Amino acid sequence: MSTEGPEAVAAAVAPAATGAKSVEKKNNKKSKKNDQFLLKTPKGTKDWADKDMIFREAIFSSLTTLFKKHGGVTIDTPVFELREILTGKYGEDSKLIYNLEDQGGELTSLRYDLTVPFARFVASNNISNIKRYHIAKVYRRDQPAMTKGRMREFYQCDFDVAGVYDSMVPDAEILSVIVEGMTGLGIKDFKVKLNHRKILDGIFQACGVKEEDVRKISSAVDKLDKSPWEVVKKEICVEKGQSEEVADKIGEFVKINGTIREVVEILAKNELLASNESAQAGITDMKLLADYVDAFEVGPWIRFDLSLARGLDYYTGLIYECVTEASAPPKNAQELKEKKLKDAKKKKDANTEDDDASEYVGVGSIAAGGRYDGLVGMFSNGKSIPCIGISFGVERIFSIIKARAAKQLEAVSGSETDCYVMAFGGGEGWTGFLKERMEVTKQLWAAGINTEYLYKAKANPRKQFEAAEKNGSKVAVILGKEEFPTGQVRVKVLGQGNDSDEGELVKIEDVVKVVKEKLDSINTDGLDEVTRLIKGL
Amino acid sequence: MSTEGPEAVAAAVAPAATGAKSVEKKNNKKSKKNDQFLLKTPKGTKDWADKDMIFREAIFSSLTTLFKKHGGVTIDTPVFELREILTGKYGEDSKLIYNLEDQGGELTSLRYDLTVPFARFVASNNISNIKRYHIAKVYRRDQPAMTKGRMREFYQCDFDVAGVYDSMVPDAEILSVIVEGMTGLGIKDFKVKLNHRKILDGIFQACGVKEEDVRKISSAVDKLDKSPWEVVKKEICVEKGQSEEVADKIGEFVKINGTIREVVEILAKNELLASNESAQAGITDMKLLADYVDAFEVGPWIRFDLSLARGLDYYTGLIYECVTEASAPPKNAQELKEKKLKDAKKKKDANTEDDDASEYVGVGSIAAGGRYDGLVGMFSNGKSIPCIGISFGVERIFSIIKARAAKQLEAVSGSETDCYVMAFGGGEGWTGFLKERMEVTKQLWAAGINTEYLYKAKANPRKQFEAAEKNGSKVAVILGKEEFPTGQVRVKVLGQGNDSDEGELVKIEDVVKVVKEKLDSINTDGLDEVTRLIKGL
Repeated sequence: MSTEGPEAVAAAVAPAATGAKSVEKKNNKKSKKNDQFLLKTPKGTKDWADKDMIFREAIFSSLTTLFKKHGGVTIDTPVFELREILTGKYGEDSKLIYNLEDQGGELTSLRYDLTVPFARFVASNNISNIKRYHIAKVYRRDQPAMTKGRMREFYQCDFDVAGVYDSMVPDAEILSVIVEGMTGLGIKDFKVKLNHRKILDGIFQACGVKEEDVRKISSAVDKLDKSPWEVVKKEICVEKGQSEEVADKIGEFVKINGTIREVVEILAKNELLASNESAQAGITDMKLLADYVDAFEVGPWIRFDLSLARGLDYYTGLIYECVTEASAPPKNAQELKEKKLKDAKKKKDANTEDDDASEYVGVGSIAAGGRYDGLVGMFSNGKSIPCIGISFGVERIFSIIKARAAKQLEAVSGSETDCYVMAFGGGEGWTGFLKERMEVTKQLWAAGINTEYLYKAKANPRKQFEAAEKNGSKVAVILGKEEFPTGQVRVKVLGQGNDSDEGELVKIEDVVKVVKEKLDSINTDGLDEVTRLIKGL
Repeated sequence: MSTEGPEAVAAAVAPAATGAKSVEKKNNKKSKKNDQFLLKTPKGTKDWADKDMIFREAIFSSLTTLFKKHGGVTIDTPVFELREILTGKYGEDSKLIYNLEDQGGELTSLRYDLTVPFARFVASNNISNIKRYHIAKVYRRDQPAMTKGRMREFYQCDFDVAGVYDSMVPDAEILSVIVEGMTGLGIKDFKVKLNHRKILDGIFQACGVKEEDVRKISSAVDKLDKSPWEVVKKEICVEKGQSEEVADKIGEFVKINGTIREVVEILAKNELLASNESAQAGITDMKLLADYVDAFEVGPWIRFDLSLARGLDYYTGLIYECVTEASAPPKNAQELKEKKLKDAKKKKDANTEDDDASEYVGVGSIAAGGRYDGLVGMFSNGKSIPCIGISFGVERIFSIIKARAAKQLEAVSGSETDCYVMAFGGGEGWTGFLKERMEVTKQLWAAGINTEYLYKAKANPRKQFEAAEKNGSKVAVILGKEEFPTGQVRVKVLGQGNDSDEGELVKIEDVVKVVKEKLDSINTDGLDEVTRLIKGL
């Protein structure tokens, strides 16, 4: 991945570019105006089906297993919330919230993320501690002109820990969850960039930024993942009204990154920060974290990076973003300009028909989160429950895995059918054995074997083999015109190299046993094809 | 169930009545107005968490396994559709559709069911055949005054077969899916009532109903699951303008029910229907179906019932509803009146605080569906794809299982943690072994074992045991102050009868192996507690 450069990843994470057969592409390219309908999904949304769906489910399954391994329990909140619950939580992004029409009664809006509903849930149920995971869709009414690659409907996979605990203990576990999550999905070229809001705020204060300007300087620095320092510096000086001297001091800090211990050492020696309470509290936290990160052996993936700021206001402590190696920010203004041009072109190419740029997904983090100790308190008259969490961007992860496994993916079947029951015969008096196929199929179902047969009274062998192949069936049970009336069927392993194999003739009462044996002999390692691909094996 | 009567089921399916600790109850009863927020979920919605969530997930898992066994693949469509896609599909229920606010751009609405989005998906992707399952939320803006027990946000679990196949073959498989689905969930006291739209329409025609009145008479007859014949007859005569003679003829037919062969025999002999083309076509279908139902051995659960009509207009062939024994309709007007009074009281009781009746769930079918051969054609300029499907009402099924397993449920843990890592010590120089607990935990995670430990530097044994018990941990790994520095830990099986057991002293490098052995020895049959409860074992 690291040799391919940002464009490769941009292509990888733009779903439209990855699979000519994807449902989305069909959906958007073939959308047609018939008499009544423009037959498409709403802008910024898509159907998931076929292999994409199987892959996505496998990713969810991998993450769910991970979350449970860490003691996570899941909850399910409504897709819409009372509008006032969401109000005032997302800063200027609040304009992206989808409102439901006022049809009388309560005013409601679609959830923008899973974090605010989680905080509402914790507060309204008086929960004092929980580790919860939640895999669900969120909604952001991004305009194509503003879009930075977001779909309007997309999945988030969140794991959050709420409760009063010793400093940095859950924080370290969340970092372990990120690393285990990515490596478990076969993603190796990634870093977890982290920073601490108390240190960042302390730096701004120490550099001479007034208390009331700290948040807006932070949101300018947040743009360093997309823009070079010279552009951000201009914003700090011109738009945010700071002196060049202040900006230059900040500029020295945001250059700093390294292992937690390396950066802690630099910060601990820094004279500007020596008397800053906020920074010192953050440094104490980071020293503890360094130890815990060692215990979990996740240090090699972690980079303490003082340029990381994160947009949302509600973070109060550790913040982090997981990025792939190839998603490095542009190094200077020229590179940024070129990137923007390239992005604009890509956007244009993707939207020749319906001017919908929403399927373009730009380079970005593949997981992100932080500590937010104040959010629950906003819902519970000040009874604060400290929280920390991570959100996996599953659609971006999906695209990376899909790009990596593009070739193998072609060989994967979209269905999980294992066995196909067929009848061979013809000539005079040939009934097609439909009812008999049903009876055999019923036995296989009762034994828990995924089984299909052709829904035709009389079907020729070729059509039955084609259907079995299309469904990825591994074994066929064949009811022969002469053999079946003597109480026997053939069990044949399907697939390459087995075409000439006539199968094994077995008694009908043994069919379940023999099919199971043949299926077991195929899946020797217990891992199905999709799981192997997901894990990068 | 059959001895408890309708009230028992009504209670069972009203979530608020089943568990004092349910999140919903907390949510609604404790909802409080603080300075800014009414801290609750929107009307007709609820949070799912804790044991309820684990149970629901287990039900989904059981149904997903079933759908895959029958060759099903899953798709995911957006939660909202272009409004025009939904328009004109739901008759008078269209007023229950949730619209999104017009914030510029397309007009969209939340999906009302999964069937119309499926038909749109099939049409827009030019799919000629698919067996798809879809488990997702749907939205109906039912007013409390109108509510018949619906939540405004609830799950549907749908399995549909699209494609041109031989008559009644997929139809028979869908019936098998219903029976396998229910028995797989430990539900035994149920019947699948079925009817055929062509027979029903033929009966109305033969009884003298004019072509243009057939649909509205059908929708009157549909009320027979809630009202006795005398009430429906009055509607047919007074509101729908039919003569008493016509109504009486219909009345004779809708009384008829029995096995498929019994009813087919009665219909085949009926002189009124002899010359009715629609009825005869339906009878031919049902004769075929009787054979296929035998092949799948699901006959004992099936009842051909001519009073079943189903509300939706788009059904064109076989229709069916799965009902529990206890949900029999009232037998006469007096019983109906008493039932209504009882329902009204229940509704009132449930809403002393916030006037929200939406959590009251009345008696109804637990799965329903039918054949709809014309719906895809409405989206594809007439290129018709025949479809048939079943929708499992998972929230009602959930309530039945929960009522059945109420006692056992108390013993189930809300989490799936298997192992808890603890430290025992104290006195001078006692560090609490936090980092050491992390290191041991990391090994267990790496081996795929769901493991937790207390997020405290120093924790006393009692608190650690309490936390382990709360999470349902089955095994504890104990790092003793004296033992651990010699390279040893204790592995102890938790739970009743093991309190005095001091555990097994093992080398640290063997901890994973020993924990796995102990866990295996506990789960001897490979089924977890929740799966056993779901299956009714």
